[in-house]
Amino acid sequence: MCMSVAVGLLAARLGRAAEVAARRGVDLLVVTPGADLRYLLDSPSSSHERLTCLLLGADGHNAPPALVVPTLEAPGWADIPLEALGVEVITWNDEDDPYLLVSDLAGGPRRVAVADSMPAAHVLGLRDALPEAVQTLAGGVLAQLRMRKDASEVAELRSAGAAIDRVHARMAEFLRPGRTEAAVGADIAEAIVAEGHTSAAFVIVGSGPNGASPHHKLSDRVIAPGDLVVIDIGGPLASGYHSDCTRTYAVGAQPAASVRDAYEVLREAQEAAFRSITPGVTAEEVDAAARGIVDKGGFGARFLHRTGHGIGLDVHEDPYIVGGNPLRLEPGMTFSVEPGIYLEGDWGARIEDIVVVTDAGAERLNNRPRELVVL
Amino acid sequence: MCMSVAVGLLAARLGRAAEVAARRGVDLLVVTPGADLRYLLDSPSSSHERLTCLLLGADGHNAPPALVVPTLEAPGWADIPLEALGVEVITWNDEDDPYLLVSDLAGGPRRVAVADSMPAAHVLGLRDALPEAVQTLAGGVLAQLRMRKDASEVAELRSAGAAIDRVHARMAEFLRPGRTEAAVGADIAEAIVAEGHTSAAFVIVGSGPNGASPHHKLSDRVIAPGDLVVIDIGGPLASGYHSDCTRTYAVGAQPAASVRDAYEVLREAQEAAFRSITPGVTAEEVDAAARGIVDKGGFGARFLHRTGHGIGLDVHEDPYIVGGNPLRLEPGMTFSVEPGIYLEGDWGARIEDIVVVTDAGAERLNNRPRELVVL
Repeated sequence: MCMSVAVGLLAARLGRAAEVAARRGVDLLVVTPGADLRYLLDSPSSSHERLTCLLLGADGHNAPPALVVPTLEAPGWADIPLEALGVEVITWNDEDDPYLLVSDLAGGPRRVAVADSMPAAHVLGLRDALPEAVQTLAGGVLAQLRMRKDASEVAELRSAGAAIDRVHARMAEFLRPGRTEAAVGADIAEAIVAEGHTSAAFVIVGSGPNGASPHHKLSDRVIAPGDLVVIDIGGPLASGYHSDCTRTYAVGAQPAASVRDAYEVLREAQEAAFRSITPGVTAEEVDAAARGIVDKGGFGARFLHRTGHGIGLDVHEDPYIVGGNPLRLEPGMTFSVEPGIYLEGDWGARIEDIVVVTDAGAERLNNRPRELVVL
Repeated sequence: MCMSVAVGLLAARLGRAAEVAARRGVDLLVVTPGADLRYLLDSPSSSHERLTCLLLGADGHNAPPALVVPTLEAPGWADIPLEALGVEVITWNDEDDPYLLVSDLAGGPRRVAVADSMPAAHVLGLRDALPEAVQTLAGGVLAQLRMRKDASEVAELRSAGAAIDRVHARMAEFLRPGRTEAAVGADIAEAIVAEGHTSAAFVIVGSGPNGASPHHKLSDRVIAPGDLVVIDIGGPLASGYHSDCTRTYAVGAQPAASVRDAYEVLREAQEAAFRSITPGVTAEEVDAAARGIVDKGGFGARFLHRTGHGIGLDVHEDPYIVGGNPLRLEPGMTFSVEPGIYLEGDWGARIEDIVVVTDAGAERLNNRPRELVVL
């Protein structure tokens, strides 16, 4: 149990969630374990088939805050300041129907917002127990809070960025011709933990043609001299906040001039997207800033994904930096800027930094060199 | 990618799912990554905010099998025999609406069954894209298949049981007075992997009063001579099938006679529940067999949970061995038998074996001593 968030801050988050819920026409939030519950209660609990959930009424709705929890799980909540937060603990036994229990506590809501990550078994269980209520996603409410990071959250993300930068700084220890992606990945996973993360949440080592698959993980392919290798790695700190940083390396030798030229297009695209960030610019404009350079370089069709994703207690969260997202960026928003170019069967490259929007523009939380490094 | 299931077997599972769906009045199954998808396609993919799903029409419903997958994830499916299984791959880009894509492919279903573990964001996205369809849980269909294990699945669970038994056999290496639960747990986690699991999915070391919290994990509590310690551990093999076994140890000395007597009640309860298993007995009768002995021993109120849970590709799945479950057990069903006694603030004990129902009764897949072992 990592109690890093002050009770007063949690109380403020609960109050703000109730306020935003009311403004959005939601009567009741139902939040199962996951990043939303960690944000509201600082609980690192995880979800399973037994229903655990926080019930949080919107301002003006008659349902006192309650944590519904299986009897056998209740001791695990002893460290969470539920009493100070005015959250009553309601336990249920394996023979009980927890959805009817929620229905009894819910205060007759017309609109119930369920956590975006809530498993369908619970979503439909609640739907049947509250047949008069319309279900919506709590993400519409909670993302409004979570995507605007306070100073302590940015500090955690800055620490996470520095930790993963230290892993990239050690890449010459791990990434050598003749080794398999899997062997390199195992060493990187150890380094991710050694540099301050609680686990290695993801380790992508995409060498040669495997680099052209953006979410390739690891394989038994032996890395050859001249390979381009995409290394996309990250994990959570004890606080729950994540790192996520990609660099592309050349191994053993400079790649061909055509590859170097394409990489330079990518580097310019990442730089242009970063420079486009300022309060008031839209998410889709940042995406377009990267995409415009890649298009002009002739690789538009090879940039297979959005430019970035928000990051915090989840590795992927709002705001998404993608075409069609008109959200205006604000100071305190944190997200990745990670254009990529992927030539199927040949090679791929991606450059990713986490950034935070500032009053004047943006700050990068990853600071390893972005030029093509030859190891 | 671990390709351990033959194409013919996967084809049979898909066919049987379509057949059971039709019988249950479901038109279309929508299965996102998780144990259900691993069962149907042998894919170990995991779920995230981008929609990946298998669409499987029921017998007689006009929707050809399709895998909807984000473009950037598609290469990760290259090893899955989708073409041989007649499953068409449909990719979507970050700017597209994947729910509308599903709606186009769905063939106008009246009843759509979504995977029990599908995140709410996808459940409600599909609800809005298919407003005429009633949503139900795919678990009602797929559990009918998954809880009846075939010989190869039982063989995997037997291997998993033997692997976790080897960890328990080494417990004297790890569990000693003067060590913290966390230190003991770290050693056990390493041993779980060393003995053949791909990860340590859960490690509970509940010493002294912590043993009275059934789902306690690890803490910095130093284990003292005379402590009773609950060790509940397991993880997946490469095939995805799980182990899960609990033993309770006395450390350094025999506990008091009253504790030994209570432990003996627990041992008898576990034995009685095991002996009650035979084809045709109901899940609640097996629960009652354990509970009757614990009640008679005077600890009824201290047995805080159901007697057991099914196990396979999920650690917890159908059938649940719980009061109110009238399901009749059949050969090939696999589940835990794990009564516990928990004295708050004092000590706890639990004995857990995974068992498989046979034609004649049941077979235990865990075989370490059930008497109280003093380390």
